[in-house]
Amino acid sequence: MDTPVSRFPVVELDDLPDDLRERIGAIAERSGFVPNIFRALGHRPAELRAFLDYHDAVMERESPLSKAERELVVVATSGANHCTYCVVAHGAILRVRSKEPELADHVGINPYGAALDPRRRAIVDLALALALDSASFSDHDLDAARDAGLTDEEIWDVGAVTALFAMSNRLAHLTALRPNPEFFGMGRQPRG
Amino acid sequence: MDTPVSRFPVVELDDLPDDLRERIGAIAERSGFVPNIFRALGHRPAELRAFLDYHDAVMERESPLSKAERELVVVATSGANHCTYCVVAHGAILRVRSKEPELADHVGINPYGAALDPRRRAIVDLALALALDSASFSDHDLDAARDAGLTDEEIWDVGAVTALFAMSNRLAHLTALRPNPEFFGMGRQPRG
Amino acid sequence: MDTPVSRFPVVELDDLPDDLRERIGAIAERSGFVPNIFRALGHRPAELRAFLDYHDAVMERESPLSKAERELVVVATSGANHCTYCVVAHGAILRVRSKEPELADHVGINPYGAALDPRRRAIVDLALALALDSASFSDHDLDAARDAGLTDEEIWDVGAVTALFAMSNRLAHLTALRPNPEFFGMGRQPRG
Amino acid sequence: MDTPVSRFPVVELDDLPDDLRERIGAIAERSGFVPNIFRALGHRPAELRAFLDYHDAVMERESPLSKAERELVVVATSGANHCTYCVVAHGAILRVRSKEPELADHVGINPYGAALDPRRRAIVDLALALALDSASFSDHDLDAARDAGLTDEEIWDVGAVTALFAMSNRLAHLTALRPNPEFFGMGRQPRG
Amino acid sequence: MDTPVSRFPVVELDDLPDDLRERIGAIAERSGFVPNIFRALGHRPAELRAFLDYHDAVMERESPLSKAERELVVVATSGANHCTYCVVAHGAILRVRSKEPELADHVGINPYGAALDPRRRAIVDLALALALDSASFSDHDLDAARDAGLTDEEIWDVGAVTALFAMSNRLAHLTALRPNPEFFGMGRQPRG
Amino acid sequence: MDTPVSRFPVVELDDLPDDLRERIGAIAERSGFVPNIFRALGHRPAELRAFLDYHDAVMERESPLSKAERELVVVATSGANHCTYCVVAHGAILRVRSKEPELADHVGINPYGAALDPRRRAIVDLALALALDSASFSDHDLDAARDAGLTDEEIWDVGAVTALFAMSNRLAHLTALRPNPEFFGMGRQPRG
Repeated sequence: MDTPVSRFPVVELDDLPDDLRERIGAIAERSGFVPNIFRALGHRPAELRAFLDYHDAVMERESPLSKAERELVVVATSGANHCTYCVVAHGAILRVRSKEPELADHVGINPYGAALDPRRRAIVDLALALALDSASFSDHDLDAARDAGLTDEEIWDVGAVTALFAMSNRLAHLTALRPNPEFFGMGRQPRG
Repeated sequence: MDTPVSRFPVVELDDLPDDLRERIGAIAERSGFVPNIFRALGHRPAELRAFLDYHDAVMERESPLSKAERELVVVATSGANHCTYCVVAHGAILRVRSKEPELADHVGINPYGAALDPRRRAIVDLALALALDSASFSDHDLDAARDAGLTDEEIWDVGAVTALFAMSNRLAHLTALRPNPEFFGMGRQPRG
Repeated sequence: MDTPVSRFPVVELDDLPDDLRERIGAIAERSGFVPNIFRALGHRPAELRAFLDYHDAVMERESPLSKAERELVVVATSGANHCTYCVVAHGAILRVRSKEPELADHVGINPYGAALDPRRRAIVDLALALALDSASFSDHDLDAARDAGLTDEEIWDVGAVTALFAMSNRLAHLTALRPNPEFFGMGRQPRG
Repeated sequence: MDTPVSRFPVVELDDLPDDLRERIGAIAERSGFVPNIFRALGHRPAELRAFLDYHDAVMERESPLSKAERELVVVATSGANHCTYCVVAHGAILRVRSKEPELADHVGINPYGAALDPRRRAIVDLALALALDSASFSDHDLDAARDAGLTDEEIWDVGAVTALFAMSNRLAHLTALRPNPEFFGMGRQPRG
Repeated sequence: MDTPVSRFPVVELDDLPDDLRERIGAIAERSGFVPNIFRALGHRPAELRAFLDYHDAVMERESPLSKAERELVVVATSGANHCTYCVVAHGAILRVRSKEPELADHVGINPYGAALDPRRRAIVDLALALALDSASFSDHDLDAARDAGLTDEEIWDVGAVTALFAMSNRLAHLTALRPNPEFFGMGRQPRG
Repeated sequence: MDTPVSRFPVVELDDLPDDLRERIGAIAERSGFVPNIFRALGHRPAELRAFLDYHDAVMERESPLSKAERELVVVATSGANHCTYCVVAHGAILRVRSKEPELADHVGINPYGAALDPRRRAIVDLALALALDSASFSDHDLDAARDAGLTDEEIWDVGAVTALFAMSNRLAHLTALRPNPEFFGMGRQPRG
């Protein structure tokens, strides 16, 4: 079935205001294509701009929480939220960043039970608690994370990534956002 | 019990970078106090800045979805997520904007069943579908909204507000954010 | 939107049998108005009479569980059940009894995560376990309450209040019972 | 395993105040034994008295909703709440009242899917909506009941029985109330 | 209401291929009737044959997990899944095997809270974890079972019975399978 | 992290009884490796044999429901159950059978919302209803499937596949079964 990129209007790189065209253009150059999230959010430039700023503030900052660990949070919570775009796109990034070609499928399909080392398990458990049952989020969740060695700075980072993708997952579900075909195979050791 | 403003460090207005101090200062002047969300996010200025930008892009833009209707979405989804800070703070704003002193309590306590006129009911139903069960969010949800007269621009706005507060609710739960005491009584016709 | 007091017929004080008119009249004198629950249940006098008796047996008895603590149970479980009438009406009573103007909003909006001292937290946890997942209610729940210092008499009282409002919440949802406007502002230190 | 009648103190008939001893005694005479619910609630005579009054007001009143239909509501909602005492005790009464020896097991084990004629199905659906998801209880639920021919008086009765057993189920779970052995076989056409 | 045995075609003993007629015939001789599950699955002989083989491999093998304990797993998980056929039919077998006439009702109605000795409680808890929330099934569940004295062979057996009836429950729900009337009273000490 | 194939003992091809060695050997020859499910179930040869028989009876029979459609049911219900082994292994088979390299990820990650043509959507909806909420499975579910053109034979097939993998998913969760690395890339058009 041929499905559209979004339920709402999408834009091309050239339709964007200068600053966004430059910014998205640089991403497109690195990956070889324009990720569909930018085409979908682009019909609201102010929202796309704020989204990119928030993303960079959280995902690109210097932190003891590695970028692969942040992608782990994205894939785990997006898997729990059944967000196809985010699992496929960030699953690809997680494969690239972790150099572990099976990790994203394990965490995206079953974030609750995936076999992970204790630090990763603590990161994912903290993220799931906040993503899925945040009303009950409590000092016990923080203590469990601290017991696994996470600092408060890392805990905030896990929380901030989780919060950002709580938003992002809902934008993808709002638009029925279709992942670019390039993401599916990226970072796999192809066997088939 | 004396509870702190946040589980993490908080800042005072004077600790903020110039642009943020000015921006938050203007808000504080209007309301008479610095809302705690800004003091909590402020220890990460880049995140606070992106948060404000996203907030303004979504909550302040020109739209046929009125500002009171946007606050209705905030209170309904924050109520469903049991987010005390957001229900109390935006409940106050909703009271002020709607001039209906009981609306926020109705929608914050029981967003599912609150008696609302058809347009408001459609707005809240759309928001709840995306906030709570976004994996199943479908064309049926959009069609129901359109049947109640919402345009696609308004539907996006409802979705964007819902998504933004999916993030915001989780930041408030991460930090166990305490509402400022001023919010509780704001916009009520005090009786007693 | 102008919503009725109840989906079913309501009565005025003068329509009630003598004993009920006297009993409700005394309440109305103290509060300055007839709480809507009595007008809604009043069209079935035998049920209203039994309701009042049960209420008094549980809520008015001499007990080491203070009346404010019993109202805490009411507001917490009614919040978990999203019962607008009970949260608004008993939130008002809790504010009056506890003299803590923010407590009812904290517990009504997020009973799961509200910051409470250990005794109150144990009371609310016990009540929520019985209100929401009573099939799994077990000796562990009682032991946790005892560990926090509750006696078996107090545990029964928490359970009896929870059970009574499991009924009460459903009667309010059955009738779509509208809280009297007087309740919303009662016991607040108005700020706004 | 030998389990006690209740987690809390129980009383014998002779321990009760006169009015209750007479009232429970009459029930015991009819059934041949004292149902354990009365022994468990009896250590709080005022609560037992109010419970009996409420029970009689709802379960014994003249109504077009037959007594077997009221027991159907009890068994269906108690089954949904996994309340062993109420399913076993009222399952026995339902078998006796309906003269259909398999009905109680069908409705107690799977209230959601049991094959029932349209009037019974509507009664059970209405009861389950109020018992399990009362925050979303809406005019649609009432309309569905009316479409199946229920009058508003019958709807109130279904609601009142559901509400009463929302309380009753929680009292039974609070006390881990053990059904009397006599109930299990009552009203069956024994085959085994 | 007269409900059919199955939503799909059913067969009589004589319609079955020789090997199945012989096998089911032997069961019918022992129980005095042909359990409806065999008549319903029989219209797909290859599936019935595989079902019987799987059943025998799991339920009839030599194991330290007694046959009554395996029936306990069946009744508990079928109760949790609200599967009327399996609760009624295997409830009967459990009564016969355990010689405890009330056990099946306790476990079938409330598997979560039924008062059981520690070994049985551990068996049921393990089964429920796998039946209801298998994504989160973890080493903690195995450790809890081991702590209660279960060997790994017994744990596998509990898991295999649970898995088999996850299938069986869904086949019964697919077909709306009606329990034979003989099952309801089997193994009870009739009292009424 | 190096995780074992199963929490329980696993076997090699040569450890199996003759008939199973031959049967699994033929599968291994076709795929180039022994799927781990057979090594894990193989330490219980009678269970493995019955599993294979059931699998073949359901998955290999002549039916208007195509083999790709049956794999669609497997991936959708295993995705809903968060079963990593089944999603990865049968996702590979679905890619091979459907020749649509993205279908398995769409359906495995979000079976509820994946954009599918009406026949596929009806198949998946029927399967999810039975997999996840089988107590409420009703004639309405069958009617919706029939409205989309499914015959009763096809409906049974969807139900039988769903039931078989309700079992299979639980066996995989019981054993924490690790997918063979070969499955992850099979049937993709590698891009990366």
